[in-house]
Amino acid sequence: MAKKYVYFFGGKKADGEAKMKNLLGGKGANLAEMVNIGIPVPAGFTITTDVCTHYYDNGRKYPKELAKQVRDALAKIEKHMAAGFGDPANPLLVSVRSGARASMPGMMDTILNLGLNDRTVQGLINKSKNERFAYDSYRRFVQMYGDVVLDLKPESKTEEDPFEVILHAKKKSRRVEFDTQLTAQDLKDLVWEFKAAIKKRKGVNFPDDPEEQMWGAIGAVFGSWNNTRAITYRRLNKIPDEWGTAVNVQSMVYGNMGDTSGTGVAFTRNPSTGENKFYGEFLVNAQGEDVVAGIRTPLPVSQMEKAFPAAYRQLMAIQKKLEKHYRDMQDIEFTVQENRLFMLQCRSGKRTGASAVKVAVDMVKEKLITKKEAILRVQPEQLDQLLHPMIDPSAKVTQIAKGLPASPGAAVGRIVFSAEDAEAWAAKGEKVILCRIETSPEDIGGMVAAQGILTSRGGMTSHAAVVARGMGKCCVAGSGDAHMSYAEKIMRCGPHILREGDWVTLDGSAGRLLLGKAKLVDPDPNSGDFRTLMAWADTFRKINIRTNADTPHDAAVAVRFGAEGIGLCRTEHMFFEGDRIDAVREMILADTLAEREKALAKLLPYQRDDFVGIFKAMGSRPVTIRLLDPPLHEFLPHTDKEIEDLAIKTGLPAKKLREKNEQLHELNPMLGHRGCRLGIAFPEINRMQARAILEAACTCKKSHGIDVHPEIMIPLVGDVEELKRCKADVDQTALKVFTERGMRVAYTVGTMIEIPRAAITADKIAEVAEFFSFGTNDLTQMTFGLSRDDAGKFLPLYVEQKIFKEDPFQVLDQEGVGSLMKIAAEKGRKVKPKLKLGICGEHGGEPSSVIFCARIGLNYVSCSPYRVPIARLAAAHAALR
Amino acid sequence: MAKKYVYFFGGKKADGEAKMKNLLGGKGANLAEMVNIGIPVPAGFTITTDVCTHYYDNGRKYPKELAKQVRDALAKIEKHMAAGFGDPANPLLVSVRSGARASMPGMMDTILNLGLNDRTVQGLINKSKNERFAYDSYRRFVQMYGDVVLDLKPESKTEEDPFEVILHAKKKSRRVEFDTQLTAQDLKDLVWEFKAAIKKRKGVNFPDDPEEQMWGAIGAVFGSWNNTRAITYRRLNKIPDEWGTAVNVQSMVYGNMGDTSGTGVAFTRNPSTGENKFYGEFLVNAQGEDVVAGIRTPLPVSQMEKAFPAAYRQLMAIQKKLEKHYRDMQDIEFTVQENRLFMLQCRSGKRTGASAVKVAVDMVKEKLITKKEAILRVQPEQLDQLLHPMIDPSAKVTQIAKGLPASPGAAVGRIVFSAEDAEAWAAKGEKVILCRIETSPEDIGGMVAAQGILTSRGGMTSHAAVVARGMGKCCVAGSGDAHMSYAEKIMRCGPHILREGDWVTLDGSAGRLLLGKAKLVDPDPNSGDFRTLMAWADTFRKINIRTNADTPHDAAVAVRFGAEGIGLCRTEHMFFEGDRIDAVREMILADTLAEREKALAKLLPYQRDDFVGIFKAMGSRPVTIRLLDPPLHEFLPHTDKEIEDLAIKTGLPAKKLREKNEQLHELNPMLGHRGCRLGIAFPEINRMQARAILEAACTCKKSHGIDVHPEIMIPLVGDVEELKRCKADVDQTALKVFTERGMRVAYTVGTMIEIPRAAITADKIAEVAEFFSFGTNDLTQMTFGLSRDDAGKFLPLYVEQKIFKEDPFQVLDQEGVGSLMKIAAEKGRKVKPKLKLGICGEHGGEPSSVIFCARIGLNYVSCSPYRVPIARLAAAHAALR
Repeated sequence: MAKKYVYFFGGKKADGEAKMKNLLGGKGANLAEMVNIGIPVPAGFTITTDVCTHYYDNGRKYPKELAKQVRDALAKIEKHMAAGFGDPANPLLVSVRSGARASMPGMMDTILNLGLNDRTVQGLINKSKNERFAYDSYRRFVQMYGDVVLDLKPESKTEEDPFEVILHAKKKSRRVEFDTQLTAQDLKDLVWEFKAAIKKRKGVNFPDDPEEQMWGAIGAVFGSWNNTRAITYRRLNKIPDEWGTAVNVQSMVYGNMGDTSGTGVAFTRNPSTGENKFYGEFLVNAQGEDVVAGIRTPLPVSQMEKAFPAAYRQLMAIQKKLEKHYRDMQDIEFTVQENRLFMLQCRSGKRTGASAVKVAVDMVKEKLITKKEAILRVQPEQLDQLLHPMIDPSAKVTQIAKGLPASPGAAVGRIVFSAEDAEAWAAKGEKVILCRIETSPEDIGGMVAAQGILTSRGGMTSHAAVVARGMGKCCVAGSGDAHMSYAEKIMRCGPHILREGDWVTLDGSAGRLLLGKAKLVDPDPNSGDFRTLMAWADTFRKINIRTNADTPHDAAVAVRFGAEGIGLCRTEHMFFEGDRIDAVREMILADTLAEREKALAKLLPYQRDDFVGIFKAMGSRPVTIRLLDPPLHEFLPHTDKEIEDLAIKTGLPAKKLREKNEQLHELNPMLGHRGCRLGIAFPEINRMQARAILEAACTCKKSHGIDVHPEIMIPLVGDVEELKRCKADVDQTALKVFTERGMRVAYTVGTMIEIPRAAITADKIAEVAEFFSFGTNDLTQMTFGLSRDDAGKFLPLYVEQKIFKEDPFQVLDQEGVGSLMKIAAEKGRKVKPKLKLGICGEHGGEPSSVIFCARIGLNYVSCSPYRVPIARLAAAHAALR
Repeated sequence: MAKKYVYFFGGKKADGEAKMKNLLGGKGANLAEMVNIGIPVPAGFTITTDVCTHYYDNGRKYPKELAKQVRDALAKIEKHMAAGFGDPANPLLVSVRSGARASMPGMMDTILNLGLNDRTVQGLINKSKNERFAYDSYRRFVQMYGDVVLDLKPESKTEEDPFEVILHAKKKSRRVEFDTQLTAQDLKDLVWEFKAAIKKRKGVNFPDDPEEQMWGAIGAVFGSWNNTRAITYRRLNKIPDEWGTAVNVQSMVYGNMGDTSGTGVAFTRNPSTGENKFYGEFLVNAQGEDVVAGIRTPLPVSQMEKAFPAAYRQLMAIQKKLEKHYRDMQDIEFTVQENRLFMLQCRSGKRTGASAVKVAVDMVKEKLITKKEAILRVQPEQLDQLLHPMIDPSAKVTQIAKGLPASPGAAVGRIVFSAEDAEAWAAKGEKVILCRIETSPEDIGGMVAAQGILTSRGGMTSHAAVVARGMGKCCVAGSGDAHMSYAEKIMRCGPHILREGDWVTLDGSAGRLLLGKAKLVDPDPNSGDFRTLMAWADTFRKINIRTNADTPHDAAVAVRFGAEGIGLCRTEHMFFEGDRIDAVREMILADTLAEREKALAKLLPYQRDDFVGIFKAMGSRPVTIRLLDPPLHEFLPHTDKEIEDLAIKTGLPAKKLREKNEQLHELNPMLGHRGCRLGIAFPEINRMQARAILEAACTCKKSHGIDVHPEIMIPLVGDVEELKRCKADVDQTALKVFTERGMRVAYTVGTMIEIPRAAITADKIAEVAEFFSFGTNDLTQMTFGLSRDDAGKFLPLYVEQKIFKEDPFQVLDQEGVGSLMKIAAEKGRKVKPKLKLGICGEHGGEPSSVIFCARIGLNYVSCSPYRVPIARLAAAHAALR
């Protein structure tokens, strides 16, 4: 038997059904399903996605069986609709639409009113008793077909659409303003003029034969699967190229046949808020495109009751039936033709994060779905919207630059170009947006003071992005459109020149810079439904969620968001604050151990207080503290002015400072003298930090009754010997502190696994380490041999050309980096079956990466405070999939 | 039964034997063996290495059984020697010496004449009838014991040895010049003065009791296992700390009992040349230390025939017997006491590379050993000496700076400080030594022109080192002692100030800079024995040896050394020569594809000629060519002057050049836009290179009848998609070239495995790659997260503190990097069982790494031309072990 390529739907029975989405596409499968459950749908057929695949695999040829199957299906439509394709007396007109497995709205092409020609248009006039309507349909058909199938398009970016030019000229010559003011004769003339333009410009006659028209349209729809828009959309939405699209050929119904007709789109619940109330719009005497085009203002769907009471009642019944049948909120399209209701589409409705949460929770309450289903209905990334202020969706805004959505949320403030200015202005009560080409650890103060951060260079894991996400602060990074001059204190964005003090709005969720002050709205992250869903998620998930937090404030925020511990507390940021940087520099510039120890002694009380604050914020939750990681040169000043200032402050000759800079300079600092390599060269640094941690823990236990279990983490270990030395320093310091204090606290010493060699030799390392935490930022850099600071030159190209499926700094590379993690986890647990494993890289808050981490048996993931709920939900997904 | 800790030897029978080296140390085992085969040896006993291990494992305590076993063994010595330990009438005197498993000459302590005190010295006088001899022995004993056991040493670096101070004062007061001129009474006085000094400075009485003396000495020997010298020696010679040393207590015999006594050291063959002739020195009426001290000039051992004819005949018989017994050249020590010959030591003799080769080949001819044994007798590293000119060992030299032995050999020349000067001077016929703080690819011309290269910064794998080794050119790298000022054209080495044009000598084998012109000798690498041994090695080895060569000259040298192909031909060096750099810069500065292609078209004929030259040098041997690897900024000028010059040359504004530099600047160039990432961003570069290679191959085939099989290698692949794209460009270019030329050549496309991710995903990559070549330089950097350019700050510390057992850039890290190689080899071969695997990192010429590569199934190793013989021999070792 020949393979079935064409699936008919119509009447009471369809060949297909909802679960055949892969074969029929979403639209085709749902049309079939609606037919099967007795919902009125104009008859039609679906050409399967297999044909699309065949088409591309065979030099754009169809399977030979296709022609006959299409003919047969068309005959069935004719029978069901009691009309004939190409019959001048009673013409059947059809629409030809794409319909992929996943919705790709607006990305592929559609043709309506197909089947019209100079003869069948007469039949339509007779049937509709409306010549103007018939010629308007004909005109629209020729225009769409000319554009989509015959490819009459503007030939340059400056040229206007050729059809619109002709239409415009017609309106001008007729001295009217709107299309609707054109007469039947005008429209008839337009059909002729359109066809003449096609002939002239493309050298082809417009096909009169409806079958030829149909095959042209089918070919165009399959062809549109590979147009640039569609390819880009698939890349952005991670839709595989090989899925292909189906084609739906469906008999036309008309909402523009007078006042007993109309058309609308609706959601079974509110897609924005989730409220359980039928929500949508309709227009009387209109076609679907009129609703979308926005020329006439549609009415709320509830008002349809007055216009078509019977059809409205039927629609209400159908929407309830659909939601119950699909057990999810539906997005539907319908047309009323002369008081008769037809459903043209139904699909799962897109919704905001807030709506997703409310619909999911409500449907559990309504016993429509289970808690597990509810959890899986909400995509972890969607929660992001709920956790940050955002730009009022109804606000009118002027976008002046685009960048990476580095840290979500929105912020309004006045432009400043340095961290010092940010702090100074903020101190005076100004709201500021810190604009920097790049940020460095010295900018922290300014970043804290600012409402949001804009950088013109750097990626999603640049310093600005990472720190901003850590702070839950809005950040747009790497905006190449924003050309800053620190000297002039101006920023050029295309034609706009912004000066210090100008007001702007940052949209960190979409990566936009907007002119002036936009209105912000502040969603409520702790709404009842959100809390309910999170609580359900927590009962299912198997791994813990910790946070990356360096300050008591961040720690407290994270706890509010449900963090169960700190997975990464970086200590270097603490070295920059206030006077501390002076002591740090003194330490770096010291020539002897005694001098270094003297400088470190000054830092000790500060660090101890830092840890007391963090431990208090975290209570008895575990806190993992990473010892000093960055290369020492990061703490030194680099510009001449900074060096002179420091020379005056310290009394050291500027020459010596320059020499030290020179001496510490590294060609590849990422692979240089940092991490535990510092602690081995200067064990006194580790000893000071260990002392600060353990003294703070003792203080918390004794004075505040908090049972702290610090987890001391040694960074950048590549060989177990490194860990051994550093651990010995920590253990010896602990012994001293406990003796001095006359008390003990439980602590552990473990390591980051962030160097490939550490992963490969994890069995050796596990003999000494009491825990592993995967530092996937560096592990990704080293596994790929790719500096995230430099990758900007080619990584976008790699993602665009699909050399990399994803940016590996955003989404964990499971194949490479993930394999190393798996090796490390297995080797580590082989030696120590109870070895605690976690992840503290940026990936710890990315849903697909969280799911991977759960699968390979990690005990926890750690992410920035504002991503904790996302990780919690992703972890639940991991458990439920 | 109690564990046996003490092994007696003497008479005709010993407790131990030669194969008990691990337990008895080399010295003890060989003394036992000599006794067993009937050779006269003064009786004694060996305390096992187990005791040393026990000593360190138990807080420097001995096993409780030891005391009794020592007492029993001592009694046996007394019986054999017919003397009593501590017996004033007939005193037994002993030596106490260390003796580890591996020879550690001079690293640990020795005590002679132990058992002397004020009473037993009388017995010695009576026995020897020589009061002066007896007191001299006593004096020496007290001095040694005071130093070694009682620790009377200089307390600062400026203080002289306290015993020498006293001795010196004594000579001065007696108005004599030499020790030998002191009388018995003088020596007796010295004994008293030495003891008084010990008492005064160390607060202890010198022990009179021989047993107490002996236990003190035994403790000192065990203690000396962990003195700084011994630890350093073990680190340099890769001797494990846990082996421990044995202690040998042996009765004294005296070569200084008049003209019928004497002492000597000898080798059974010439250790320098390998000549099969008994070779050594002796002194009449002297003790062993006199031979070593060089106060009296020893006589050639052949002259002993006159002095002690009977003893000499016996010695000749013994040395023959020993060589036959041990089947190897022996290093022996002997003493003649009153015409009676005693053997004090025998061990495998250390020898030069030349000697090792000759002895091994001769012994095969003499049917003493097999070819396999001969091959294993020569250490691959030893061959290095045979392959480079070296400083005449007899020359008197003044060393003025120390550095790393970066590329072996020696060179004499006049100092210049820039590559341009090197070329200019060389063009005038001057021999020059190029002195640079560091070298860069732009210095290549100067490096070629120079006799040798000295750098003050950089390690064993710095640019200078790698390139020099590739050229077989002598190089001393990273000499921190040499402070260069380019501006002044001077170099300060301690007190020496060297100016441009001054003569110096470089010793690249030892890492020394010598003042003036030292005499060089040029060993013959293609001597008969060398060729014979290499031919034997080639019959056993299982993997091929290729070379890393970028020029026809290097290729030809390597072929002479036995290279079977080129494993790595880097193409970037070709980009710097002559005018080419202009075209390269034009390409980099181009804004459009068309401009880039125009610049590349200029490079094409040069590159094609390069390859024709290399293919001709290699004949039909395989040649692997790596496409462009370094980041583009390496090709741009960086100093203001260079930029201005280029601006004038190209007519481009200097500003644009600076902007380009700025734009291409990278924070971590090692992990930046380089390798195949260039070829993906600019496919036209790969296409030009592929064209040059394939056109050259066609030309060679057609015009020279050489059947070339180029292997085109894509660098820095991390994901199979990268390789796919680059391979497609090569294949398309090949198709074009073959069509144009009307002919085909066989070529393959493969990849470097130098990124950890490539190793991890080798199965995917093997689907596309036709060969893998492990780039272990970069693989080591990325696996360790360690930049070799920056590691100088802490890597020496790591090696010194034994955090790393070896410098991983010199010796392949089998545990980490090697594991990744193994994973990649296994995954690759699983997909393509015949996948050709090679290594082209620096490790390809390092013996232990070659052996590892053979073990994991690589098809070939590739190394610099001058290391090819080393690799050939190492590969044979791999097959024979």
